[in-house]
Parts: sequence; structure tokens; C-alpha cells
Amino acid sequence: MSKRAKPGTKRLSEVGEAALIERIARRAGRTPGRDWALRIGDDAAILRPRAGDELVFSTDAYVENSHFRFGRESARTIGRRAMVANLSDLAAMGAEPVGALLALSAPRDGALADFDGIVRGLLDEAERFACPLVGGNLTHARAWSLDVTVIGRCPRGKALRRRGLRPGDALFVTGTLGGATLARLKADRAGSALRQVAVPRIAVGRALARIEGVRACIDLSDGLATDLRHLLEGTGLGAELDPAALPRPRGFDRGCSVMGLDPLRVIAGGGEDYELLFSLRSGRDDSVPMRRISALAKRLGIPITRIGQIRSENGIQGLPQAGRGHHF
Amino acid sequence: MSKRAKPGTKRLSEVGEAALIERIARRAGRTPGRDWALRIGDDAAILRPRAGDELVFSTDAYVENSHFRFGRESARTIGRRAMVANLSDLAAMGAEPVGALLALSAPRDGALADFDGIVRGLLDEAERFACPLVGGNLTHARAWSLDVTVIGRCPRGKALRRRGLRPGDALFVTGTLGGATLARLKADRAGSALRQVAVPRIAVGRALARIEGVRACIDLSDGLATDLRHLLEGTGLGAELDPAALPRPRGFDRGCSVMGLDPLRVIAGGGEDYELLFSLRSGRDDSVPMRRISALAKRLGIPITRIGQIRSENGIQGLPQAGRGHHF
Repeated sequence: MSKRAKPGTKRLSEVGEAALIERIARRAGRTPGRDWALRIGDDAAILRPRAGDELVFSTDAYVENSHFRFGRESARTIGRRAMVANLSDLAAMGAEPVGALLALSAPRDGALADFDGIVRGLLDEAERFACPLVGGNLTHARAWSLDVTVIGRCPRGKALRRRGLRPGDALFVTGTLGGATLARLKADRAGSALRQVAVPRIAVGRALARIEGVRACIDLSDGLATDLRHLLEGTGLGAELDPAALPRPRGFDRGCSVMGLDPLRVIAGGGEDYELLFSLRSGRDDSVPMRRISALAKRLGIPITRIGQIRSENGIQGLPQAGRGHHF
Repeated sequence: MSKRAKPGTKRLSEVGEAALIERIARRAGRTPGRDWALRIGDDAAILRPRAGDELVFSTDAYVENSHFRFGRESARTIGRRAMVANLSDLAAMGAEPVGALLALSAPRDGALADFDGIVRGLLDEAERFACPLVGGNLTHARAWSLDVTVIGRCPRGKALRRRGLRPGDALFVTGTLGGATLARLKADRAGSALRQVAVPRIAVGRALARIEGVRACIDLSDGLATDLRHLLEGTGLGAELDPAALPRPRGFDRGCSVMGLDPLRVIAGGGEDYELLFSLRSGRDDSVPMRRISALAKRLGIPITRIGQIRSENGIQGLPQAGRGHHF
């Protein structure tokens, strides 16, 4: 069942569409800026692209009872997560956020408090990454659903794509892996709410896009095994990972062991770390890009770890094969 | 209840996410073009904006049991309507379509035939208006939902906005009003499927954006009364309509009378005509823009009718007041 307002609390149908949109617009802001000539309040938002930029677009749905459950996390956390999942797609392209659109579906008898919480969480993350909410749509449905579309910019020709792998390329990940999944499993067992929200790797992604030799890049939303498979798809290539090199949060292996979990399986199958996985072209002199990656990690205070390499042989070595992605 | 696959027919969960996305990508096409450097298949699509263009963005959700019901219309019609509703927002901005993103939610045990039908309908309209599907997202949910985001372009500063009304401005509509609502009511009473799909007024919108003096513009998705109220919102102004001037399809009044309906109420309250409502600034010499509007109507073979004018006095005269919009 979809979450409804408790008796005695305000329902969305009592507020009405116009007033709900006004609540969002007031918080999101309406003032035009350098990029946006027109924001919330018309049939469409108007962007003035800057010369020399490419624009990138991504859309992601975040659906009640498929991606989130009320009670398992707060309304604000739900809003934050929906935004983070989308910002992470921009990070994977090496793009700078430009703006976002939200198509929000909610039950007529949904609680105004949940609506406010979701919008607040979404706008918190949007503001943090300078990604203004410029438009959207509000509709009633049986379940809650947040469909966010994000727009980002890159200097022309500089966006990081998934393609471009070659045998011998080194594979890297940012940050640490498995922490988000372990936190979720712990919260589920304890029946407590999940508060942890990943940080989309916007700054790292933008910097990586400027490093010569950085190629295929993807954000880890479905777990290392699935997302690495996405990178390899259609290339005929494989990968060899060094299980010992996979970067984990402090205390991760012990935390897994307490819960009777295999740390490698948690890393392989767990999603929502939103770290970046990318390859570095192996060349005559690898030392220059390697030095730039090290310098970047140091400057941003984020570990960037070499975890393996691309091979001509099909398949992924060094990682337990996880199931399908979480969609369908 | 949400529609599920019949026993013995193929369910979406049997096909799997990757193969479903592949089905869409194959039909939508993947070849980069002048605008799109990267289409379906990465974390995001990449657009190369043309110099001097503004980009406009709009998003709209089309949700099972809220906006459509299987059986009431075919899967293909559902897909077509979802796309038309979004293209119509571009028309209202005077924009040329550039591309679309689709976040599609469907039940795991939804029918592959419905998925295919929806995608086909969506792509039929997308192709017809040169609006390639460049990306999206596929997710499972309890009910079907199509969230389409469209991107359009206008010469800089030329987009038609909702604002800009002044007392004395003449009000116009394209095409005829009420036909979509009457067709739906007829189909509902007869228990037959609805096949009629409106045509988004892309060409008219683009041409209107080039005519000096054309100001506030909106597409009629919620009915004349509601959408005119949207135009007037926050202006302190009102409108006076000439009920006799409201353009109806041939046989409309008789069709309404057979069903015991008041034609004016059908026009005021009925949505989904997707015609454009716009104002023309009254000036020292109205004859030039008026001639250009007449010439445009003639060239495109679409009636454009003067239906009233903007007044300083609040409220809408000459039209029965319809209820709220269809959202919430």
C-alpha cells in the first residue's frame, strides 16, 4: 500500500494543485539567473546555453515500494536520495549541474508533511550542488513517484562516456565501496530508519573529464558487478579485478562478518554507493595521467584506487558474480 | 488495479531490463546527428546546442488510472497521447522540438505487448515531430507511468511565455475547441476505445513566436476556463469572451445536444484539445499583426479565431466557470 495521511493531518487534496506548486516554487526560487531566463511557472523553463558547452541530460524515476518505502527512511531522505541518484549521472559524465525538473506523483490523500519533506530533501541536495529546480509537473497517482530530470554542462567534446575501453586499461574507483549497502542491511535488520545518503561525485567527475586518457566512466548505482558489466557491454572485453585492492570503509569487513555477510558479495551486488568507476588508457607513458589522478585525489580528499584492469578475455575475474541489476 | 499480462502472454519480467531498453533503443535509433552527440545507451544523452538558441524544457507525467486506462484506449494511443501532451508544451513556447527523454514505470507482470504498443505510439509521435527519443529510464512499479521530458529550441529571446498580458489585448485560439472532450464522453458512454489523438500545434507556435505583438501563450490541456485562468494568474486582469465566437468542430453543438450537454460547458471544462490560446498586443496599428495572423492561418490551413479580449476587471466573462484543473 501507498502511504496516506494520518487522520487529523493535512492531505494534499485539501491544499490543491496550484497551492502545492506554489509551495515548491517559493522554496525553489523563481529569480532568473545567468543560465535560466525562465524558471517555475510557465509551460516550460528557458535555458540560455553558454557558447562552447555541450549539455547532458539524464532522467531517473524513484518510485514508492520499488525504490523507497516511507518509514524505512524519512520523507526528506527520500527526496535527497532521488536527487542524488540523478546528480550522480551528471558526475559520471563529468558534467557540471545546470538545473533539474521534477515530475512528482502523489496520492490525493497523501500527507502534506510527506510532500514538504520530499521537496525539502530534494531542494537541499539541489542547492548543495548548485542545480536549481526550474520546472516540473505535479499529478495524482496511487503511489508516490519522483521522476527527476537533470541537465548538466561540459566543455564541448569533453563529456565522459561509457565507451572507449581497450585491453590493458587500468580500472579505478573513487571513495570506498559497499558502505551504503551495509548500512541499508543493518537498518533493515534493526528496523531503524536509514539516514545515510551518498554524495554524488560531481567535483571528481568534472576533474576526471579534464584528464587526458580517462575514458569509460559510470556511477556505481547498481553495484560494482552490474555496473562494470554495463561498461563492458558490447565491447567483447573483460576485466580482472584485485579483490584485496577494493577500497572499503573503515570497519567494513568486520561489520560484514558480524552480520554473516561476504564483504566481496556486498561490494559486488550492492548499489547506491554512487562512486565513480572509470578506466585510464594505458600508453607509452602512464606516469603523467597517474600523477594527475593522485594529485586530484589529494586535492579533493577522496581516495581514488586502482582496482584492476581491462583484458581481451571476456568475463570478470576476481569478483563474485552478483545477480541482475535492481530494475526488473 | 493496474493492468497485468494475460496468462500465456509474455511478461516484462521474462524479458528483463537490458532487453527492454534494447527494444526501445533499436526503434528509437542511436545514430548521433547534428544536435545529439550521444543518444540512448550511456549515463546521459549529449546535446550540442546551436549558437543563438535558447533551450526550453518541460516534463509531464502520464499515469495509469489517473490519466489513462488500458481498455479505454489502446496501448499505442496511450503512448501517442503522452508524447502529444509534452510536444504541446513546446508548441505553447513557440519552440521547435529537439529531443525527448522517457522515464517509464511498469509492473513486473505487465504485458510485453502493452510495453511495445506504448513505445511504438510514443515514437510515432516523436518521429512525426522530429523529436528523437534520446534517453530515459526503465523501472518497475505497481502501475504504469510515462514521464516524458521534452527539450525544444527557440531563437534567443523569442520564446512565447504566459506573461505579458495588458488590458485591451485580443485573445485568439487555434483550431476548434471541445472536440476532444466530446469524443471522450461519447466513447465512455458507448464503452468503446478512444482513438482520437490531438495534434500538437508545433508549426503554429513557432510561427506565432515570430509575430511582433503576440504575447501570453498557453496550450489548452485543462480546458479553456482553467487555462485562461492560468494566463490571468497574478496579473489582476480579467477577460471577456464572445461565446458565439468560440470555434467548434462541425456538428459539435448538435453532438452535445444529443448527449444532453451544454456546448459551452464542454469547451470551458474539457481538456486535451491542445490548441493554443494566445494574446495579441493592441497597438496604434493592429492591422499588421492581424494580417500576419490571417496569413499564417491560411498558410497552415488551421483556423485562428479571435474569441475575446483582456480587461482591467478581474474575472472571466462569457464562459461558464468550470471546476478545477484535472490534477489534484
